[in-house]
Amino acid sequence: MDEFEIDVLAEPELEDPVLVEGLPGVGHVGKLAAEHILEELDSEPVCRVYSKHFPPQVSVEDGKAELAHAEFHAVETETGPDVVTLTGDHQAQDNAGHYGLTDTFLDVADDLGVERVFALGGVPTGELIEEYDVLGAATTEAFVEELEEAGVEFREDEPAGGIVGVSGLLLGLSERRDLAAACLMGETSGYLVDPKSAQAVLEILQDVIGFEVDFSSLEDRAEEMEEVVRKIQEMEQGNATPSEEDLRYIG
Amino acid sequence: MDEFEIDVLAEPELEDPVLVEGLPGVGHVGKLAAEHILEELDSEPVCRVYSKHFPPQVSVEDGKAELAHAEFHAVETETGPDVVTLTGDHQAQDNAGHYGLTDTFLDVADDLGVERVFALGGVPTGELIEEYDVLGAATTEAFVEELEEAGVEFREDEPAGGIVGVSGLLLGLSERRDLAAACLMGETSGYLVDPKSAQAVLEILQDVIGFEVDFSSLEDRAEEMEEVVRKIQEMEQGNATPSEEDLRYIG
Amino acid sequence: MDEFEIDVLAEPELEDPVLVEGLPGVGHVGKLAAEHILEELDSEPVCRVYSKHFPPQVSVEDGKAELAHAEFHAVETETGPDVVTLTGDHQAQDNAGHYGLTDTFLDVADDLGVERVFALGGVPTGELIEEYDVLGAATTEAFVEELEEAGVEFREDEPAGGIVGVSGLLLGLSERRDLAAACLMGETSGYLVDPKSAQAVLEILQDVIGFEVDFSSLEDRAEEMEEVVRKIQEMEQGNATPSEEDLRYIG
Amino acid sequence: MDEFEIDVLAEPELEDPVLVEGLPGVGHVGKLAAEHILEELDSEPVCRVYSKHFPPQVSVEDGKAELAHAEFHAVETETGPDVVTLTGDHQAQDNAGHYGLTDTFLDVADDLGVERVFALGGVPTGELIEEYDVLGAATTEAFVEELEEAGVEFREDEPAGGIVGVSGLLLGLSERRDLAAACLMGETSGYLVDPKSAQAVLEILQDVIGFEVDFSSLEDRAEEMEEVVRKIQEMEQGNATPSEEDLRYIG
Repeated sequence: MDEFEIDVLAEPELEDPVLVEGLPGVGHVGKLAAEHILEELDSEPVCRVYSKHFPPQVSVEDGKAELAHAEFHAVETETGPDVVTLTGDHQAQDNAGHYGLTDTFLDVADDLGVERVFALGGVPTGELIEEYDVLGAATTEAFVEELEEAGVEFREDEPAGGIVGVSGLLLGLSERRDLAAACLMGETSGYLVDPKSAQAVLEILQDVIGFEVDFSSLEDRAEEMEEVVRKIQEMEQGNATPSEEDLRYIG
Repeated sequence: MDEFEIDVLAEPELEDPVLVEGLPGVGHVGKLAAEHILEELDSEPVCRVYSKHFPPQVSVEDGKAELAHAEFHAVETETGPDVVTLTGDHQAQDNAGHYGLTDTFLDVADDLGVERVFALGGVPTGELIEEYDVLGAATTEAFVEELEEAGVEFREDEPAGGIVGVSGLLLGLSERRDLAAACLMGETSGYLVDPKSAQAVLEILQDVIGFEVDFSSLEDRAEEMEEVVRKIQEMEQGNATPSEEDLRYIG
Repeated sequence: MDEFEIDVLAEPELEDPVLVEGLPGVGHVGKLAAEHILEELDSEPVCRVYSKHFPPQVSVEDGKAELAHAEFHAVETETGPDVVTLTGDHQAQDNAGHYGLTDTFLDVADDLGVERVFALGGVPTGELIEEYDVLGAATTEAFVEELEEAGVEFREDEPAGGIVGVSGLLLGLSERRDLAAACLMGETSGYLVDPKSAQAVLEILQDVIGFEVDFSSLEDRAEEMEEVVRKIQEMEQGNATPSEEDLRYIG
Repeated sequence: MDEFEIDVLAEPELEDPVLVEGLPGVGHVGKLAAEHILEELDSEPVCRVYSKHFPPQVSVEDGKAELAHAEFHAVETETGPDVVTLTGDHQAQDNAGHYGLTDTFLDVADDLGVERVFALGGVPTGELIEEYDVLGAATTEAFVEELEEAGVEFREDEPAGGIVGVSGLLLGLSERRDLAAACLMGETSGYLVDPKSAQAVLEILQDVIGFEVDFSSLEDRAEEMEEVVRKIQEMEQGNATPSEEDLRYIG
């Protein structure tokens, strides 16, 4: 196996598609958001990326093993432009690997004719929150203004420490390729997998890109999560213990 | 020394051999199982793999030093097909090394004409157990069914976190080479080197492959292990202390 | 992106320029010092270095993302020779990367015609100090003597453990290129970002190189830092708590 | 700088020289022993090895910086064969680097006509000891026997875990080059830099190789060390505190 391997699964005709990345990160916000798009809209897998920089691991489903990979899907948004999602269960496991993997993702995006990139993620607040703001960063001033108009928050000194990992590199390496890219980060505690944060990010994204998804299933998951949070708080006060299903929400 | 070095020690005629891998892992189940085959049946070493990805280490036996390596043996099963075992004391020490080393193992397997791969390992339960189930994963549905018929368990969400290391990669990289591969994982506490788990795995393996080994020595070791477990439990209750020989069973 | 990428931003005429390096390190002394030169004197960015050995990260300012990099500026000292500063927010994240990155910095310096290199840093004392000595190391005896005359201290067995990171490698790799290099290290507690240590280093540097900067803003920051230190001491005795602005000085 | 750089400093005529390696390790036994040879007998530096796998570091002596390296000296033993020592302050910092660095050392040894390799080190007992046995390992049975006759101990299951690092790899990689190599390991507590263990190793080595060194300075250091040990024991019982000079013996 080479350092990076690209398996082309389909070659659909796409028109100025937009890339939406949702790999694992803080609160799994980006992952939840991108996977929600795939659950709600029609899509077909177009490409898989394997790499020696992914963990040496297979996942097992119905007894069948699958080597660690990231996957691109072409999504029919009906009302909006073509969208290509980038999802997966892992990020690169080493420093230089992050750079090489993101370069490979952008090569695939380039082959697919992608003109704009959206990296989705979370920014940890360190505590449970009531209001779910979405913070942003982008490669050009014009893009920053467009996002501000859509309700994205740009605050001085946030995110503290910049943006690390594939979301950050998608911005940095897109900029070096003269490709417009933005990162939308939903505020989240950082303690839980956060459906409310994912929904906040998707609400902005659908306005900016121009598509629509139904949020019912995310809202259901949000209610379940709030139930879990309440139980944990009660548990800490000695009143109840979380079930295994509850624990599904913890990171 | 190159990144990977293959020393060919013998070139026996093998007919559609099956590869059985038992490198160190959880409870050393796979290692015990594969080494038990070598203890019970006639075999000859056919190939050694050295690598910069193995630890920088020599083992010492009778004063003689041996550089870290993995070894392939050709085994005469008498009643069954030719079997090639893959054993050793180490796995790769870094991420990309795991991929490269497993690719090298599969290159050797390919040269030997291997058509099916069995990776043996353990899945930790986190506690001492009475019943020793064997969980599985494979590269094709047909293979999954064949294993299920032989008594291998396929449970949803298990193994949790998939399969990591050379056993997982043997499945993932075999699949990319259109080579049929399966992983058999004996349940084990994860605290001890586990002869009972190794025997459970071998009992399934001999049915699937079609060979036989005697289990007396493994059963003896299992009795010793149970004796050790009893002493540890007594020790924790303040009644006895384990000897150095007892401690041989701890990881 | 290649392993190292050099973006040339300008190509000014420079005459026997001196390189002054101030990347992050102990007490951020070198960083503060080099950045102070850029704040006080006119300069233009001449070159940026990107690398897979920098963290996979973008910083965000005014919503715009910037990929991790180090930057060279050409500085007009008015009274002295041309100075080229090397600044940035990161060092290499892995061992071999340190060597490659420093080699790349020296290649850039060579292209700019640099004849002498000054690496600025801090040496931790482990406690708050009153007097701020500047310790030194250089590639030739002549350079050591020149620095001693300028007030740099050379003490036996200091710095303990030698000099690690880009400052140390600038000396080691310059020596192999027959390039004269020195390291000036301001004593500092190691607990705080230290403007007094940066000033002590700059006072020596301006004498050795032959330029001048105003120190008012560093002195202001030094007063703020002493205020913070006093509050921390009171806090430890139970009298006050540091504000978020105070905490800006902690590492 | 390349991955490995060999600086040839001198090219003396050597006749069937023996390589004696003493890089840092357990109790610094090998380092002390090899450096003692250099202190007692006439020698000249013949070669230096630099590498990106050494730490990114310079040592500082008399204000002059020296890049991390390992050094070969040609030693005049007067009564015995030519000896080439390999000394330094660092081992490789990463796995593959250990292999590459040791290969480079053996390339240098090959250029110098080395026919036999002795790696010197310590084996930790975990407690202070009275008797200082020297354990061994070698690449051939004949060499094992020769060492046994000279008083080297070969015990089953020792050293536990084999030999790790450059000493182990010198054996493993020499064997692959059909070069005879042995490792002599002096028992040592592992807590202190141990001159008595170094002397025990040298006493065997001089018999095997056929040279002589005076041990007075090592014996003086041993007395100092015993004094330190006594003080530490008293300190632990509340009677005295070790001075900074005493602490020089701790690791």
